[in-house]
Amino acid sequence: MNNLLLRNVRPMAGETCDILIRDGKIAGFGTFEAEPGMAVEDGSNAIVAPGLIDAHTHLDKTTWGMPWHVNNRAAVLRERIDFEREHRLEIGIDPHRQSMRHAIGLAAHGASHIRSHVDIDPTHGLRLVEGVWETREKLDGIIDIEIVAFPQSGVMVMPGTVELLDEALRQGCEVLGGIDPCGIDRDPKGQLDILFALATKHGVPIDIHLHEAGELGAFTMEMMFERIRANGMQGKVAISHAFALGMNDYLRVGKLIDEIAKLDVAILTTGAPSAAVPSIMRLKEAGVRVGGGCDGIRDTWGPWGHPDMLDRAQVIGMKNGLRSDRDLEHVLHIVSQGGADVMELKNYGLKVGNDADFTLLAGQTLAHAVVDIATRPLVVKRGRVVARQGQAVVEMP
Amino acid sequence: MNNLLLRNVRPMAGETCDILIRDGKIAGFGTFEAEPGMAVEDGSNAIVAPGLIDAHTHLDKTTWGMPWHVNNRAAVLRERIDFEREHRLEIGIDPHRQSMRHAIGLAAHGASHIRSHVDIDPTHGLRLVEGVWETREKLDGIIDIEIVAFPQSGVMVMPGTVELLDEALRQGCEVLGGIDPCGIDRDPKGQLDILFALATKHGVPIDIHLHEAGELGAFTMEMMFERIRANGMQGKVAISHAFALGMNDYLRVGKLIDEIAKLDVAILTTGAPSAAVPSIMRLKEAGVRVGGGCDGIRDTWGPWGHPDMLDRAQVIGMKNGLRSDRDLEHVLHIVSQGGADVMELKNYGLKVGNDADFTLLAGQTLAHAVVDIATRPLVVKRGRVVARQGQAVVEMP
Repeated sequence: MNNLLLRNVRPMAGETCDILIRDGKIAGFGTFEAEPGMAVEDGSNAIVAPGLIDAHTHLDKTTWGMPWHVNNRAAVLRERIDFEREHRLEIGIDPHRQSMRHAIGLAAHGASHIRSHVDIDPTHGLRLVEGVWETREKLDGIIDIEIVAFPQSGVMVMPGTVELLDEALRQGCEVLGGIDPCGIDRDPKGQLDILFALATKHGVPIDIHLHEAGELGAFTMEMMFERIRANGMQGKVAISHAFALGMNDYLRVGKLIDEIAKLDVAILTTGAPSAAVPSIMRLKEAGVRVGGGCDGIRDTWGPWGHPDMLDRAQVIGMKNGLRSDRDLEHVLHIVSQGGADVMELKNYGLKVGNDADFTLLAGQTLAHAVVDIATRPLVVKRGRVVARQGQAVVEMP
Repeated sequence: MNNLLLRNVRPMAGETCDILIRDGKIAGFGTFEAEPGMAVEDGSNAIVAPGLIDAHTHLDKTTWGMPWHVNNRAAVLRERIDFEREHRLEIGIDPHRQSMRHAIGLAAHGASHIRSHVDIDPTHGLRLVEGVWETREKLDGIIDIEIVAFPQSGVMVMPGTVELLDEALRQGCEVLGGIDPCGIDRDPKGQLDILFALATKHGVPIDIHLHEAGELGAFTMEMMFERIRANGMQGKVAISHAFALGMNDYLRVGKLIDEIAKLDVAILTTGAPSAAVPSIMRLKEAGVRVGGGCDGIRDTWGPWGHPDMLDRAQVIGMKNGLRSDRDLEHVLHIVSQGGADVMELKNYGLKVGNDADFTLLAGQTLAHAVVDIATRPLVVKRGRVVARQGQAVVEMP
């Protein structure tokens, strides 16, 4: 029974009040007396926001907490993929231990939900998914993890992968992933036909990594639009990265965004600093669902990143050139409600009846909280305190 | 007499040794016994790097440590400039107090030198420079501050500014600044002729903010090249931002960089996340001096930034798409030796006889130290400990 009285907090930086939680649900905002035996916390007038959401990450890849991984390999996408697949276990990237570290880090920084792509390939079969699955079970009540069956090494170029994806979805992965149908698979029709058929068979949504830039990515998007229409998958497809929307052609991008809005395609952005990325403000104007994600953090691909969605909010906000308080509040929206919209979470948000998943934020205003990236004073998941002062209540392995 | 024995450190992540400091200078690397009365510190095998350098910032502008400044004004450059000039004092941005906070923050994070542009305009005369000047004197022995006489509001469009710049240089500002001769002043010939004449008169170098992008910025650069040749100012001119070098024309940018290398023009980059920026790796190949800077932090222009050159190294590294250990070491170079090259510092760097200005870095390797942005264990300026565990020995006002 997760009952809690959280005193003196400012929901979304508004008026100070208490939050009453019964059975892990928000029972009320106001002024309350503690009920006998009820846990009580004092929020010290901190802001309270709904749990942050990392809607695009890779829990199975990080070297977080391991010795520094020296990387002077060539910056070639295919080589990065192959190196990781062939060497990840010998390097010591145990999918369970490392996903624990990554996910606990996110929880300690106020996240309540994760959508994680997890690699599936013939070398490892479903072993990496099983490692993250174990983490998901161990962290039940700490942070919710949704798993995307992700063919990181390709679908058409990696025989045996389709059968593994099929099996992963049968076993309960909630989303089907994909990656660069042209760039990686060299067969957009082949890959997309297979992925849409698999998703339809299992009744799951699709979330495709689309690094393809410019007209190539636009072409792939159009092939996706065709299949969304043909399969009736409006509202069930997400495009991660979507760098093509960052191309320097205002009208062309506008037409793509029109289609994205019409087909209710969701966009996941990481604010990739060295790439051309979608404008989150333009997507907002078009009414597109947009979530944010940390992507890989400190993995064999690259060293950057922290398991902290406010850190990522900074990356996304700076990349988008946002400076005003209003715009900073929208960045916070993207790493919270925006992720919930993409993941179609039920019972999310600071409303009576919803799950008591939230984080306190240091800062005078929401904008201040976003740029300050200060330690989160308290994180609550389903009414239970899961982190204090940046430290999760569970130990990092 | 700043004598110090610093035991167990790894210069640039190399072999562990002691560093002996006499009279604020590095006297030796090796194994030493403490001399009678000599201060001794144990570096616990941390990396030691030369003091970090913020070679492009604005000490007079920050709201750091003040109540959150709400900003929902329009994102128009001229309006930002005018709002700041007209309201900075009433908002409470006292140039001395705020530059103290900013500079102490940098020192606490391992910086030994700052080049700060300081606004000069008819509204404030030299009052802002005087405030930073006071900070410079108070922080003597903590961090060195070089002041650029900076016509933030423009030169040609702001009568009276030329005389103020002249007076500032007469009083000892070390560098003459400038800003967007086309974009702000609408008179590139007028502004550049005056600035080069003033610099020649006072024998000071020039450091011009050039936000002008694409062909406009390239045109202004060419006008600068002509005046560098005409005035024999090779090696004495820096271009800050230089967004024109980020334009998408490989050959055109190559020709500009050839000229920049030939005239020994220095480039200062902040890795501006939402702009097109110069490629630091391409400038490295061309042998151009490149330093890094935090630019404004949390000011009326925008909320982002921290007084920490490793934070800025991250912004620059991510923006440039750098991932390998070798490249991360180059980013560290830019925020240390690169800044020293631009500022033409004498006696800088980890060599016997040089000033004992350095910082310990947490991390297993240099690359790890750059991405980890962990608390600096110890910062030493001219042989004296000026910060421990991220806390400066001087109090922040």
